[in-house]
Formats: sequence, C-alpha cells, structure tokens
Amino acid sequence: MLSPQQLETLASLVDQKGLRTDEESCLQYGRDWTRVHSPNPAAVVLPSSIEQVQAVVRWACAENVALVPSGGRSGLSAGAVAANGEVVVALDRMNELSDFDATDRTVRCGGGVVTAQLQEFAESQGLFYPVDFASSGSSQIGGNVATNAGGIKVIRYGMTRDWVAGLKVVTGTGELLDLNRGLVKNNAGYDFRHLMIGSEGTLGIIVEATMRLEAQPAERAVMVLGTPDMASIMQVLRSFRDRVRLEAFEFFSEEALAKVIEHQGLARPFATASHYYALLEFEKIDERAEAAAMECFEHCVEEGWVEDGVMSQSLAQASALWRLREDISETISRWTPYKNDISTIVSRVPSLLKEVEELVGANYPDFEIIWFGHIGDGNVHLNILKPDAMPMEEFQARCGSVSQGVFESVARHGGSISAEHGVGLLKKPYLAYSRSEAEIALMAQLKRVFDPAGIMNPGKILDA
Amino acid sequence: MLSPQQLETLASLVDQKGLRTDEESCLQYGRDWTRVHSPNPAAVVLPSSIEQVQAVVRWACAENVALVPSGGRSGLSAGAVAANGEVVVALDRMNELSDFDATDRTVRCGGGVVTAQLQEFAESQGLFYPVDFASSGSSQIGGNVATNAGGIKVIRYGMTRDWVAGLKVVTGTGELLDLNRGLVKNNAGYDFRHLMIGSEGTLGIIVEATMRLEAQPAERAVMVLGTPDMASIMQVLRSFRDRVRLEAFEFFSEEALAKVIEHQGLARPFATASHYYALLEFEKIDERAEAAAMECFEHCVEEGWVEDGVMSQSLAQASALWRLREDISETISRWTPYKNDISTIVSRVPSLLKEVEELVGANYPDFEIIWFGHIGDGNVHLNILKPDAMPMEEFQARCGSVSQGVFESVARHGGSISAEHGVGLLKKPYLAYSRSEAEIALMAQLKRVFDPAGIMNPGKILDA
Repeated sequence: MLSPQQLETLASLVDQKGLRTDEESCLQYGRDWTRVHSPNPAAVVLPSSIEQVQAVVRWACAENVALVPSGGRSGLSAGAVAANGEVVVALDRMNELSDFDATDRTVRCGGGVVTAQLQEFAESQGLFYPVDFASSGSSQIGGNVATNAGGIKVIRYGMTRDWVAGLKVVTGTGELLDLNRGLVKNNAGYDFRHLMIGSEGTLGIIVEATMRLEAQPAERAVMVLGTPDMASIMQVLRSFRDRVRLEAFEFFSEEALAKVIEHQGLARPFATASHYYALLEFEKIDERAEAAAMECFEHCVEEGWVEDGVMSQSLAQASALWRLREDISETISRWTPYKNDISTIVSRVPSLLKEVEELVGANYPDFEIIWFGHIGDGNVHLNILKPDAMPMEEFQARCGSVSQGVFESVARHGGSISAEHGVGLLKKPYLAYSRSEAEIALMAQLKRVFDPAGIMNPGKILDA
Repeated sequence: MLSPQQLETLASLVDQKGLRTDEESCLQYGRDWTRVHSPNPAAVVLPSSIEQVQAVVRWACAENVALVPSGGRSGLSAGAVAANGEVVVALDRMNELSDFDATDRTVRCGGGVVTAQLQEFAESQGLFYPVDFASSGSSQIGGNVATNAGGIKVIRYGMTRDWVAGLKVVTGTGELLDLNRGLVKNNAGYDFRHLMIGSEGTLGIIVEATMRLEAQPAERAVMVLGTPDMASIMQVLRSFRDRVRLEAFEFFSEEALAKVIEHQGLARPFATASHYYALLEFEKIDERAEAAAMECFEHCVEEGWVEDGVMSQSLAQASALWRLREDISETISRWTPYKNDISTIVSRVPSLLKEVEELVGANYPDFEIIWFGHIGDGNVHLNILKPDAMPMEEFQARCGSVSQGVFESVARHGGSISAEHGVGLLKKPYLAYSRSEAEIALMAQLKRVFDPAGIMNPGKILDA
C-alpha cells in the first residue's frame, strides 16, 4: 500500500482527475475479463499526456512501486490484473486521433483510443481498419498492441502487429522510445517496435501508436457449409482459398450450433445436421465472385467434403449467419466453461482436435466439449462445459489436469499455448510448452534491459 | 590470425569441404557488394548442418574468435564484410527446401537457399514468393532475413519480414532457438523472430527459415507516366492506388531516363520529356482492370498531374518498360556514383527530395544527381555521379560531407538512414540520425543478451 505522502506525490504527477483510490475504481481497473484473481490495486492513475506517463514511471522506479498498464481490460489471460497493491496506469484519457494523412493512410492514436473509435474514423475517411473482435467497443489500441490482438479476419488481414506503423513506448526507466515513426521501409537497427508488440506491458507502456488503414473491401457474402469431418474442412479451406478472396474462415461443431440455436432462438442454416460447420466470408470483388463460390461449393459437394450449405443473399442474411458463430461464446457462458485458446499450423489442426477430444473423452467422459474458432489461421477455441451437477471447485480442479494434457498435445503439434489471448498470469505456468527453457531465460534477461527495476507489470508472462 | 591448432579444431567441426583458408576463398567470402573495406578473414567455414553451425559458434565463443555470417554477400552496407581476421560462416551448403505443405502454404528453407531457388520452387507448386530484387539469383534466404530485404514489390507484398513464418537461429552462445514454428497465430511471450529479422547477424545466425508462399497474381500490366513534379507523382499514386491493385510504384528522374536510353540503346517510352516518371505495375484481376487504369490515366492528364504515358500491351512490352527503371543502377555505375538508400513517410518524399536537391545544388554545383526508387513506399535512392574530371579521392571526400547534410534532412523528415540496405559498417556512423541515444544504448545491451561474448559480427550496426 502507498503512504499518504506517496499518494500526494502521485497526485501531483497527474492532474486532479488523474488519481483514484476509491473502492469502485480499484475494482473496475484492477481486473480484466478473467475472474480468477481478486483486484487489489493501491491506486489508479489516469495520465492525460505522455509526459505524465513518464513522470509516473520515473516515480515508480524511484519508489520501487509496481505498475500495471491498463487499456480496455477485455483481456482473457489476466494480463491487466492488479492483485498485489500495484498502481494501475489507465490510458483512458489519452484517446485522441490525430495526424491522419490520406497519402500515407496512417493515423496517430493515443494509447487509449477505443478500437471501434479507430474503425469509425477509418470509415469516415472512406478507409478501413480491419482488426476486429467481440470487444472492439471497449478494447483500446494500446492494449491491442500490447497483446497483439487477433480476431475474426486474421486470415485476410493478419494480427494487430501488421497494422502498426509507429509506436511510442515508455520503458521501465521512464524513457520515451519513438519507434519507426510510420515508415514503410526502415532497416536501421533492431526493430524494437515488433518486440513491444505482444509484450503485455512487461517491457513498457504503449502510449501512442500510428496505425495503418486500408481501402474498404467490396461487399461481402457469407456461406455456412456442413462437413462430415475436420479433414473435409481442410479441403474446403484449400478449395475456396484458391478461388475466392476469403475474409474469414471460421468453424464450429454441431454441439456448438445446437446450443446457439436453442438458446438464441435462431433457425438452423439448413436442414442437414453435420459434424462440423465452416463459416466463410468472401469479398464480391466482381460479378463472377458469387459464381466462383457456387462452383467451388458444388465441387466440394461432389467430393463429399460438404453435405449441405447456404450463401447469404443480403447483408441481413450475412449478419444472421454470422450470429451462428459469434453468439457461441455468450450462449455457452451459462455453463461457466473452461476455455482455452490454442493454435497449431493449419494442416495439423485436425490431428490436434482429435488428440484433445480423445484425451477429454477418455479421462473426463462426463464433460461436454464445444469447439469453435478461426480455423483458417490454425487457431481453435476449446470450451468444456461444466456438468450442471458438478460443484464449481471440483470442475476447476479437474480442468486443471485437462490443461496439462491439452498443452502436452499442443507441444507435440509444435503449437502455441496462446494463439491470440496472450500469457498474462493465466498461461504463465504453461509457457514452457510453447517456448524453450533458453527462450524463457532470454526473455527474462531482455525484460531486465527495458525494465531494470522490475516495475512493469511484474509477474505477467514471466515470474517477477 | 588463427593458430594451426585452432584451424585443425575448426576443421574437425565441419567436414572436409567445410574449411577454406586459400586466398581466393578469403577474398570471395570476405566481402559483399561494397568495395570500401579490404577483405581479410582468418578462414571460411561452410557448415552443412545446424549442429555444425552450433559447434562452430561454441568453439568461437570459447576461443573468443569473431564470426561473420555470410549469405549471398550482395549487401550494400558492408554487413557481411570480414576485414579483421574473423571467421566467415557461409551458409551455402545449407540450401535445402523441405516440408512444403499446400494447406499451410509454407516451405522450410535452409539459410543458404538462394532467393531465386525459392521463387522457382513456389512456381513449381503453382504458388508465388513475392519478395524480389536485382540480386535474387545470388542472395540467400538467411541473408534476406538477416537484412529484412525489400525490393520492388514492397507496396503490395511488404518486406522479407512479412513472409517469415518460422526461424531457427543459433545465438552467440551456440544455443538453437526454434522461433514461431510456422504458426499464423502465436501470442506466447516476446517475439524473438521479429527481433532477429534485420539484426544483420549481430544477434545470431539464421540457419533456417520457414517461408510463407502466396497465390500467383493474375497477369500484370505496366504503365510509364511522365509527370511535371513530385507533388503530381503523389497525386498519381493516390489515384491509381484507389482504383487498381498496384504491384509496384516506382519513380525515376529525366536525368536517369536519359542516361539509360543513351547507354542501353533503349527507346523513349513516349515523345514528351517530363521532369519525373512514375512506373507502375498493376494486376489485371478482371477485364475491367485495364479500363479502370485508362480512366485513371485520363483523370490524371486532365488534372495536369500526367503529361504523357504508355501502357504495356504484352509481357514483352512490360519487360521493356521495366528495363527503363531496372537498368538505371548498372547504367550509372560507370560514373562510380555515391549511393544512398533513404526513406521517409510517403507524403514527405517531395519535401525530402527538394531539400536534398537544394543542398547538393547549393554546395556541390558540379555534381549531377540521379534519383530513382520505390516511391510507393517512401524509399528513394540518391545517386550522385562523379564528375569525369574529378579524382576519386576528392569525390569521396566531398561526398562524405554530402552524407552529413542528407542525413540531417532525413532526420528532419523523421526518416530512415537505411530504408532497405541495413546498417552494416557503412551506415553505422550515421545511426543516430534515425535512432535515439537511448535506443542505441538499448540495442547494445540487447546484443549482450544474445551474444555475451561479443563474437557475432562485431562492429556491424553497433561499435563492438
């Protein structure tokens, strides 16, 4: 806890509205979307300028106080949790968009700019910011960069990493680094920008990002296709990828679809029930695009890869089809599911799924698995529903041992224990399944270079 | 120099063909395309496996011998020069392509795979490796990754960085890091892959890279357009970028064109002479693409941005037009030009060009400037021709002071002192014009993390 004098000094570094110590603020700013740790920050500061962030970091360095950078706190790995008397540095007030240039197609975003705010700004300029996910209305650009946020269009547009043209970062010593300055081509020494992306606030605070924007895509169409097995989904992916310009390629299981239809009052996309479904979106770049998609569909049916399917004929239909995929998370939340975000290379997804299904089926026959995810990029979300009769403690304990087996399978598949959610506190114990001992040791050394006092989000990714 | 015993040990670590100490090999492997430093390596080793590379590095670490990793040695910044008794580690024999997967669209490349070899392999699979430049026939993938090689299609496809799905790197302690393993999505801790890309062999040796391949583009058409000034070129870029799918957007000055036409025996693309020319290539994705380009051309003429122009009607014509741009470098080599590879954000290119022209014009009125470059991505190549009557020593001395002024202008424009050629030895004295003192200090600390003995390409990018 901070002394009254420390709080007074801290208040003097940010302005009147910039310091909060009330219980509600501490609860709100002390956690993300995970609910595993009890929030317990010593204070919350909301700086309004880069200079104020630097002053807070220098103070924390001198006083040896741990800081937790905080964006929209929609993270799912407890990367922005403050449970040990840290000072939360929330970027909310640094939310200005500036210096848009139509030739460069870039815009400067304060770390606290909300994702949707950037998306809407891009649209107002006739352009497009393509990184999109469920929390776009609350997540912030600084946090997106710190976690290298992914989402539903990675197959076409990549991760947040691919849209960062410049980055201002305050390191653990309060130094401001101005990285890459919006340049397209810059081979002048080590690229610290990419090192900061995905570092989850452990190397510095992302105070500003210059983001690239893109031409708006043409109108899009959505297809949902029923397939007998995962191998067929892979064939469907390859067929469509070669013939239409894919914007998304998602999948979900019949179990997921059944739950969504029952609980959201939606209609089945078509009568036939299949084991797995692919949802794909493509850009109608010209009048032949739909015909090409239909031809491809027919080819997949002939080959036995697709059992039935539907294509949207309007934006409303497209949205309705997307709901079948997007409403899964909310629908199954009533079963307080165990959730895991894993990946492997695309071609090995069927094998990974099979191994995990066998593992859970053999050891936890009373558990129900719900699969969905961004299969076009190798990222699957494993969800295990809590049996109604099972007490929460027992479910959590048993899921702990599920994790072990899942991550062993991920490691056998050369995959990642965290495809897009980051490591934070939740995945830290499992990092060695994706990174070697040498790599983890190098990470710790590298953290000390940028954060010699160990005050930047300590305990996240690596042990403090 | 190495002792006979050291040479014997070294020979035992690589096989019979793996050690060379003859003068010719030392000359050949001791330098890149720059001719400023005298090659003087103690020996050249050509390991044939990752294990051999690790053994050589461990030996060098124990014996405190400096290593210079070596690819195709087509670099232009003396990044692969061995002038101080180093041991050159050439990857030539590690040139296997393996583990191609059509679903993942990736292929594993030994560090010594030649760029053209990868391009041809991609083509044989009906795919495309888009990073392309003049030295594709000799440059190697390991070197491309180490220097983040760019080229003529960055506007559409990005740099080498954007195609690296996985990387195996031997660090300065001989540790093998297996980074990202081909994954599309992987947010499990710091991304060392991107740190290694562009590190010019100072953090480790790139022994293997898993490269992504892409669908082949449709047939392409090339246009050359005459414009009155740089501001007009920017308008042309914006107009075409919004209406056709650009693959390249290059520029060159009338001075450059005149020299190419005269010395290569080529025809002018059209009668009108303009101050600057844009060469653009676009993909004919459908039958409307050419019409869209023509409309755009007419619009640019109406606005006064374009004075005259031509569009290729065949592949042969497209190649002929490309020669006007691609032959510049070779054409002007007879004047042993001073060359500089700089960048700024695209919108600031006209201002940077103007400042540099004024600088050279005012201070060196007897110098002739030849501009060309990849203007679509903000990268321009400044070339100053040696006046025939001026002795080489005087020209070089006077160009030294040109550099100072050019880099000051680059710094004022927030640009890069090295857009795509890297830092090596040549640009090291000027790094502070693009990177802050704090960044350079952090780079040095970071180098010590990966290379505690200081044996990996010492003196490149940073002072040893």
